[in-house]
Parts: sequence; structure tokens; C-alpha cells
Amino acid sequence: MSYQAPYKDMQWLVEQAYQSQNLAELNSLQDFDLDLANAIIDEANKFASHVLVPLNAVGDTQGCQFENGQVTTPNGWKEAYAQFRDSGWIGLALPEAFGGQGLPKYIAQPVNEMWLSSNLAFVMFAALAQGGSEILLKFASDDVKARYLTQIVTGEWTVAMSLTEPNAGSDLGALATKAVPQADGTYQIKGQKIYITYGEHDMADNIVHLVLARTPDAPAGSRGISLFAVPKYRVSDEGICGEFNDVRCTGIEHKTGLHGSPTCSISYGDNDACVGELIGELNQGLMAMFVLMNEARLSCGLQGVALGELAYQKALQYAHERVQGAGVGGKRVAIIEHPDVQRMLLSIRSETFGLRALGYQIAALLDVSEHSQDPVRVRMAESRIALLTPIFKGFATEQANDMAGTAIQIYGGMGFVEETGIAQVMRDARITTIYEGTTGVQAKDLVHRKIRMDQGVAMCQLLTDMRDDISAAPQSQPHQRLAVAVDQLANVIDGVLLNPNADTAKLDAVSVPFLKAMGGICCAWQLARLAQQAQINQAQDDGFFRNVMALADFYSAYQLPLAQAALTTVSQEQNGVGAYQF
Amino acid sequence: MSYQAPYKDMQWLVEQAYQSQNLAELNSLQDFDLDLANAIIDEANKFASHVLVPLNAVGDTQGCQFENGQVTTPNGWKEAYAQFRDSGWIGLALPEAFGGQGLPKYIAQPVNEMWLSSNLAFVMFAALAQGGSEILLKFASDDVKARYLTQIVTGEWTVAMSLTEPNAGSDLGALATKAVPQADGTYQIKGQKIYITYGEHDMADNIVHLVLARTPDAPAGSRGISLFAVPKYRVSDEGICGEFNDVRCTGIEHKTGLHGSPTCSISYGDNDACVGELIGELNQGLMAMFVLMNEARLSCGLQGVALGELAYQKALQYAHERVQGAGVGGKRVAIIEHPDVQRMLLSIRSETFGLRALGYQIAALLDVSEHSQDPVRVRMAESRIALLTPIFKGFATEQANDMAGTAIQIYGGMGFVEETGIAQVMRDARITTIYEGTTGVQAKDLVHRKIRMDQGVAMCQLLTDMRDDISAAPQSQPHQRLAVAVDQLANVIDGVLLNPNADTAKLDAVSVPFLKAMGGICCAWQLARLAQQAQINQAQDDGFFRNVMALADFYSAYQLPLAQAALTTVSQEQNGVGAYQF
Repeated sequence: MSYQAPYKDMQWLVEQAYQSQNLAELNSLQDFDLDLANAIIDEANKFASHVLVPLNAVGDTQGCQFENGQVTTPNGWKEAYAQFRDSGWIGLALPEAFGGQGLPKYIAQPVNEMWLSSNLAFVMFAALAQGGSEILLKFASDDVKARYLTQIVTGEWTVAMSLTEPNAGSDLGALATKAVPQADGTYQIKGQKIYITYGEHDMADNIVHLVLARTPDAPAGSRGISLFAVPKYRVSDEGICGEFNDVRCTGIEHKTGLHGSPTCSISYGDNDACVGELIGELNQGLMAMFVLMNEARLSCGLQGVALGELAYQKALQYAHERVQGAGVGGKRVAIIEHPDVQRMLLSIRSETFGLRALGYQIAALLDVSEHSQDPVRVRMAESRIALLTPIFKGFATEQANDMAGTAIQIYGGMGFVEETGIAQVMRDARITTIYEGTTGVQAKDLVHRKIRMDQGVAMCQLLTDMRDDISAAPQSQPHQRLAVAVDQLANVIDGVLLNPNADTAKLDAVSVPFLKAMGGICCAWQLARLAQQAQINQAQDDGFFRNVMALADFYSAYQLPLAQAALTTVSQEQNGVGAYQF
Repeated sequence: MSYQAPYKDMQWLVEQAYQSQNLAELNSLQDFDLDLANAIIDEANKFASHVLVPLNAVGDTQGCQFENGQVTTPNGWKEAYAQFRDSGWIGLALPEAFGGQGLPKYIAQPVNEMWLSSNLAFVMFAALAQGGSEILLKFASDDVKARYLTQIVTGEWTVAMSLTEPNAGSDLGALATKAVPQADGTYQIKGQKIYITYGEHDMADNIVHLVLARTPDAPAGSRGISLFAVPKYRVSDEGICGEFNDVRCTGIEHKTGLHGSPTCSISYGDNDACVGELIGELNQGLMAMFVLMNEARLSCGLQGVALGELAYQKALQYAHERVQGAGVGGKRVAIIEHPDVQRMLLSIRSETFGLRALGYQIAALLDVSEHSQDPVRVRMAESRIALLTPIFKGFATEQANDMAGTAIQIYGGMGFVEETGIAQVMRDARITTIYEGTTGVQAKDLVHRKIRMDQGVAMCQLLTDMRDDISAAPQSQPHQRLAVAVDQLANVIDGVLLNPNADTAKLDAVSVPFLKAMGGICCAWQLARLAQQAQINQAQDDGFFRNVMALADFYSAYQLPLAQAALTTVSQEQNGVGAYQF
């Protein structure tokens, strides 16, 4: 089976996001309307299905090879990269001044989703290029911008994000890589990093490592971390690759999934010849890196959607083809006739649809934050994005694992046989809840930074928006069920999350259940809104819009209760984790 | 890290099961008391940790090889099998008359759990020997018993269960393998089977395939299926292996997990020289096979427990060792100090403990059904086992997948690196919700056969037992929460499950949520009972018993709400799956 972009979903959800965020009002987006969005989705779909999809199983089966510091990507990877680069996809949403196409995020979102469904392992360089460019645009000197940016935006060079060390994973403050200032203003970099995606490969001429490191007199912990651009080959004043910069790959991981993308250990400055250039201010590295990190987290959430879609398409096709068991009247039927199989398919379909809607809304909000001239609107968009980022990242990736498992279940015994390709989805999905901040890290960010430090302002605005939507459709069952869940959520926010006397350990213990509750309620909210819109549109296209309403019904009956159960857990926690002695 | 039997858990839960089922009253079990149970658990633990545990990663890494119809098991497999056989473990709970040790099920249960935790792929032959022997004991002629049983019970030969065909998986009624009667009373077998665990291997002298096939004039569907013993090498009147019986392995599957156990495609009678012997009555094959199937389903449930335990032990050790992030006062701490990690560990620990308790109760009930002289007690035990079998199989295996995922999450990035071994648990667990009847098949069995066809009799007895336990401890929080869930369950049973007008398609759609609700409530019930017992015992050993109480608290706060959410889904389903057009 071969992945096809869910064209109708994408088109309609892009339209919904565009309209509900009033993007048509933004002057600088006048040239980027829905017609353009559809044309680009169409082009991207061709590229995805012709070039990326066929390589997905190749990457999984073959994996990357490591020998003498060199990484060889799977067969076809190099050529596909050249096509991807030459077609201008890397700079899709990056500035035209540096060779990009300057498209808004709301158009880039469905395109990125397609790449991620088609071949997640392959396309990981794209989000790195996007995030890396944004860091340089925001923090780098004009000199660095002039020498690096065009090459990155056009895909001549790739970007690697170099954070983790063996003793510093979630806790970046513990990292030990050193950066010693030199007379010429550069820094000598020395240290070991691990888990560097595309830290070494054979697809591009240079690799720009964005490395977190500590200068000799930096304060301890996360306040003493600076960010450096450390290219594999040094970059001349004219932006041309020069001598080797003492950046060595020492190995690649043998992973459960994402076999096609090399996860590298990198040693910087083994021979004291590794030069880095400071990006932004000294000791402000984490702040700069967070630009890339937020980008990466939203990309992870979208990976959840994309893997859910891939799982759904595969399982749906299998369910249509596989004949097993009897239907009404005892005739043998395809398993899609079985209600339990329908339930499994709908659990993936509705989750993917709701999460996609949420992700597209976030993309449109990013456009608002970038292009609106109204400072209040910008601030509102930014605070909503900040609140939704950990929810989208955490929940979509957790659900991706569930959805991949459900798809395997639909395949039955064939799901456990690697040749069908469905197990790859599960194996690939497994890392998404871990990298770019585990679900636990997202949940802490949500509870402490995004809600408590914000004194619940963004959260209350979200509740208000949900309630406004609910009161607009008082007769609809998904809205009625959502209303109950939102009341329960509001009580938990007031009684637990914003409780000034709340015990931090207890909040941390329930933070992941709380994040999951938020995720489920956000999806139910999106689906309810969409169902209302679908009801209005119903005459236009019976099938699609009736199905949207059915998805909202299904989600409110099958998934929303799980979100409410998680809220119950948040309320009930008293001494649950504390009472046990390990 | 190396698995160790959870000795204290096993000892105490065996004792609890022994006492609550009054096994001491059974005359034929007088020689098999708790002291013996503990001695055997001890012996098995030595064998497991010395022989089986070290081979688990070997099996995963190396897998089985197939060439020219021959299967080569991983290095060390053959020798370990010989040790396993020679130590008499295969016939542990099989009759002494045929070379077994005749131990009761309640003692075999912790031993089997250990095998499954240590090396699931390896030890799959053991449940096949157990179930295969029980079929022969119950249905085979004295002649067949005399010629086959001792070799199986002593492990000289192994058993394979040969049901599935490419077009007949969950729907066995569709199978097409033929059995043509011969003048001498035997049958010529011809057909292809797939997914045969240990259908071919290099560890034993002969393999007895129990094959489902159709005689020429058999009725269509599942009423025309007979069961045959089809040995790889023909068995003489004296029970000695003779000529090759035209049973050919045509390939093995490339699986996501369980790499060490060969999953074979077998072709019977390619050269019309495959002889089978009828077991039981003609056309009664499914009934006979169900003896093995029920055994296998209970074994699957125990696999869920065993994989949960393995995941827990690995994650616990990692959480103790891995230093990351700051605790109180800003000092770096092992991640086990983080409440979210504690939550994850407790979710595995409490689920495993509750499921283990449930499984041990079922084992003790099997002993009651086999050894009690009181027909009422036997009938009650049988009906309780029948009700709990799909719940235990379905829920424990679903939870095993979750638990393995949670354990990976505790490992963080290291969880995605194959060398740590935790990903193997996830990959191995993935099949447990599929084989021996998918979760959907279990759920249908539960709803239709075990509840509706039974008119709710066994179900109501279970509710009564739960309520009796609840009323015995009205002050305890886990009991109070359980009481609410049990009331909700009773309403769902009356209003939906036993509703004479219920729509079958709707019941099927909610059958898996219902099964999960039952599983969660059964675990919460077991944990609440155990907590009450632990409170009584508290003075004896503060740590262990206080922890049991903490587990019951945790489960009632974090897991039980999910069971209740699933009940809400069962109540809310109206047209959820029916309204969507695929």
C-alpha cells in the first residue's frame, strides 16, 4: 500500500484554520491564499508519493552504515535529498532573502505532514533546517547570517542540533562541553555529544552543528550555557567550505526504529582544532536553542499526526482487503464490516483528525504572531501557542504510539510480520514521546511554566474560547459532552493547578495525566467545532461532512471519557506516588 | 540487568490464592502445600536466572535461521532445551503416570511466570506441551495416549498447534486442510498452515502437530472440523519415531519480536504421504482444540504479567542508576526521585501486581475444578474460570503493551537503543494481544458467550463476591472507589450487556472497552482485597505490606478511573461506529 496525502482533510482543515484565525486580514499574507495552499499541497503530494514513500521501507530495512567516522545513508537517500533540495522544499517557509520561498506556516504545515507520513526517518533534516535557520535569523550576527544562511535555506548544507551528552539529557544544565574563547573572537570547542540526528551523513557538503557548550568562567547549571555554530568544514568569509573542523562522528545508534536516519555520537575537538562561532549572547544559549526546540516540538506533534495518518491508511486498506469471519446472514466479509474493527479504525481516524485540526490552528497562529500588526493579537497568539505546544507535542506523540499499536491490531498476525510495514510505524513512533523533551518534560512545562507561572491567564482564555464554541451549538451531543468535560477541567485548574498551596511533587505526579486530559479535551473541542461547521456545509458534500460529524460523535463517546478519567486522577491524587517505598 | 523472580510477591500471592480458594481442604492436594510451593519457586528461580535469562537477548539478536526446510534455533537454545527437559520442568503439572510430576496448577503458575519473564521466545514450547498433553489426556484413544504422551510429558518430543491458514485466522471455520480416511483407520492429511510456533526446530527428536482439518464429507464451517495428531516422524506401535511423515516447513516469519521462537509455515502431505490420527470424535475438533486454546489463553495472560514484571525490573534498576535533574535543594538525583518517574514505575508495578493476583486466583480455581469432590464447587470454579479467561487474556496482554511502552519511556533516549534490551520487551509483547485470539475475539467471547449466553449468572456471582469484599472494609479508600465502579459496572451489565433488545453490532463495537473495564475493575478488586490483608499483616513486615496498601491506593486513583471511562463509553455508544461511512 502506498501513502497518499489525505487531500480533502488537508484542504478543508487548512481552510478552517485560515478562516478561524482570520489570516485573510493580514496584509503581508495577501499573496498566499487558499488557492496557492491547495496548489502546493498538490505538488508536494506528487513529490512525496514518487520520491519519499518508496524509500521508507528501504531505510528501515537497510539502515545507515558507520565506518571510519563516515556514515552511509540507505540506497537512494542521497539522490532523494538532491531532488528535495533542488525542488526548493527545504526553504519553503524560510525568507526569500536567503533563497527560501517565504510561504506562511499554515501552508507549510500540510506539506510537512506529508513528508513526515511518507518517510519520517528521511525528512528529519527538514525541521532541523527550518529551526536552525530561525535561530540564525533571530540571534546570529549579520556576518554569520551572510556566511551560513543561504546554504542552509537552499539545502546545500544541513543543520544538526547538538544538545545531549551522556550525562545531560533532559537536564541540559548538566552539560560539560567546553568553549574556550580565542583571540580572533571564535571559540575552541571540545566535548562529546550523543543522539545527534543527521550529525554525520553523506547527503550534503557541510553540516552546521548548533552546539550547546560552556565557556570557562560560565555560571554553573543552565545559566552558563552558550550556543555555537560549529560546522563540519570551516566556513570562509565568503561562505565557502574550507578545512576539516575536527568534528568527528564516533558511532551511530542501533535503534528500535527510524533506522534510515543516523543518530550520531559526535566528538568535537579531539585534536584541539574545532572552531565554533558564538550565536547570540554568552550564556543565553538555552534561550536561543529554545527557538529551535519549540519548532522541533511542534514538528514532533505533527509527526504524531503524520504517523497516525500513515497507520490509518495502511490499516484501512488491509481492513478492506482481508476477508475473515461472517457478517449479517453468515456470508464471509472483509474485516472492515466488523464493528470492533470499525471502532479501531475510527479511534485512529478521529484522533488524527482532531490532532491535525489542532496542529493546523497552531500553524495559523504562528502566522498571526509573525505577520499581524496588532500587538494585542500577536501577544494572544503567542500565549496560545506557548500553552498548546507542550499539549500538542506530548499528546500527539503519546497517541501516535497507541494508534500504531491499534493499526497492528487491525492487521492481526500479519501486523507482527515485518514485511507488511505496519510494525515500522510503531517502531518509528516509539521515539516521538522521548526526543525534543519527553512527555514528562512537556507535562512539567505545561503545569509549571505555561499555567502556574502564567497565573492561568492563557489557560482561562482557552477555556473561554471553548465555552464560547459550546454555547454556539447547545443541541449537539459532542458539544454537550464537551461542556461537562470543560467544567471538570475548570474545576481541576482552579482547585489543583492554580492552588497556591499545591505540593510540587504531587503536581508533578499528575502532570502527565493532566497533559493527556488537556490533549483529549482539545481534540474533542476541535472535532465539535468542525462538526458544527460540517453541519452547515452538509449540503455541499454529504459524505465527507457527515463523516466529520460522525467522528466528533465517536470521539466524544470513546475518547473524551478517557480525558475525564485523567482529570479524576488529578483530583484524586493524595499520596498515590508518595506512599510507596521503592 | 538480570531478571530475578519477584520472590516475595510470588510467595505471598500464592499463599493468598491457596487460602482464598481453600486448597488445603482438597484431599488430593494434601502433599502439595505452601512449603513445597516455595521450594519449587526457589529451584525454578535458579534455573531461570542461570539458563534462560542469559539467552533472552541472544535469541532476539540472532533469531532463527531457515534453510532447506530446516530451522536452526539461536546459539544455546538446544542445550538449554536439553537442560529444561532433563530437569523435568516440562511435565511439572502433568500426570505422574506419563512421566510428569503431577503438581497442582497453583504451584506451576509462578514457575511458568518465571519462565515467561526470563525468555518468552524460548519457553513457548512449554505451554504447548501442557495444553497438548491435556488434549490427549481428555480426548485421545488409549492407544494414542500410550504411544505419544510420555514422550511429550518428558519433553522428548514437542507439540505444535496447527490451526491458522492464510485464509482462516480468527475465523477457523474457513479452514481448508483436508483429512481423507484410510482403510487402516488413519487419515491422509493435506494442506498448508501458517503461524505455527515451534512447528519446526532442532531441539527435539519429534514434533507432534495437532492439526485441524476437514474430512471429505464434513459439514461446512466450524462444525466440520476434526483434530488430528500429525507427527513429523511417524510413531510406531511402541511409540518410537519412524519414517518422515511428509510434514515440511516451508519458511519462517520475519517478526517484530519473539525472534528466538520460530513461527513456521508448514505444508502437510506435499507428497501424499502425511498420516494423521484422529483425536476425539469426528467434527468435534474445535471443542478439543479449545482445551489447548483455553490453556494457551491463560498462558497469554500470564505472559502479560511476566512481561510487565520484566519491564518493571529493568526500568526500576535504570531509574535507580540514571542521574538526571535536580531534587529538593537542587542536588542532582537519580531519576527515581522524580514523581513522574515514580508514577510510571507504579503504573507498571500496580498493574503487574493486580494481574498476577488475578492469574494466581485462576490457577487455584483450576485446581479446585480438577480436585474438588464437591460438584457445586467444581461448577462454580469452572464458570468463574470461563468468565475470567477472556478478561485475563485480553486485559493482561493489552496492559503488557502499555507497560512495555512505559518502561521505555522511563529509559528515555536509551529506551530506543536496542542494546538496553527494553525495546525487546515491547517488541515481544506486541503479539500477545493477537495470538490465541485477538483482544477483539476475547471481548466477543466475554460479551456473548460468557455473559449473554450465560444470562449473566457467572457475572452476577462475580459482582456479589466483589460487593462482599467491599462491605468487609467500608473505611478503605480503594474499597470505596471500587464500590462506585462496581455500581457503574452493575448498571452497564443490566442496562446494556443483558438487555434483550441490545443490537449485536453495538455490543460488538463496545466489547473491547467493556473488556478493559472488566480487567481494570478485577485488578482494582484484587488489589483492594490484598491491601486489606496487608493491613492485617502489617506488623510482620512493614515495608512489603505498606507497599501493597500503597499499590491499591495508586491503582484506585490512577487506573480505576480509566476502567470507569470505558464503562461510560459502553453506556454512551449509540451510533458511534455505525454513522461513519468508510
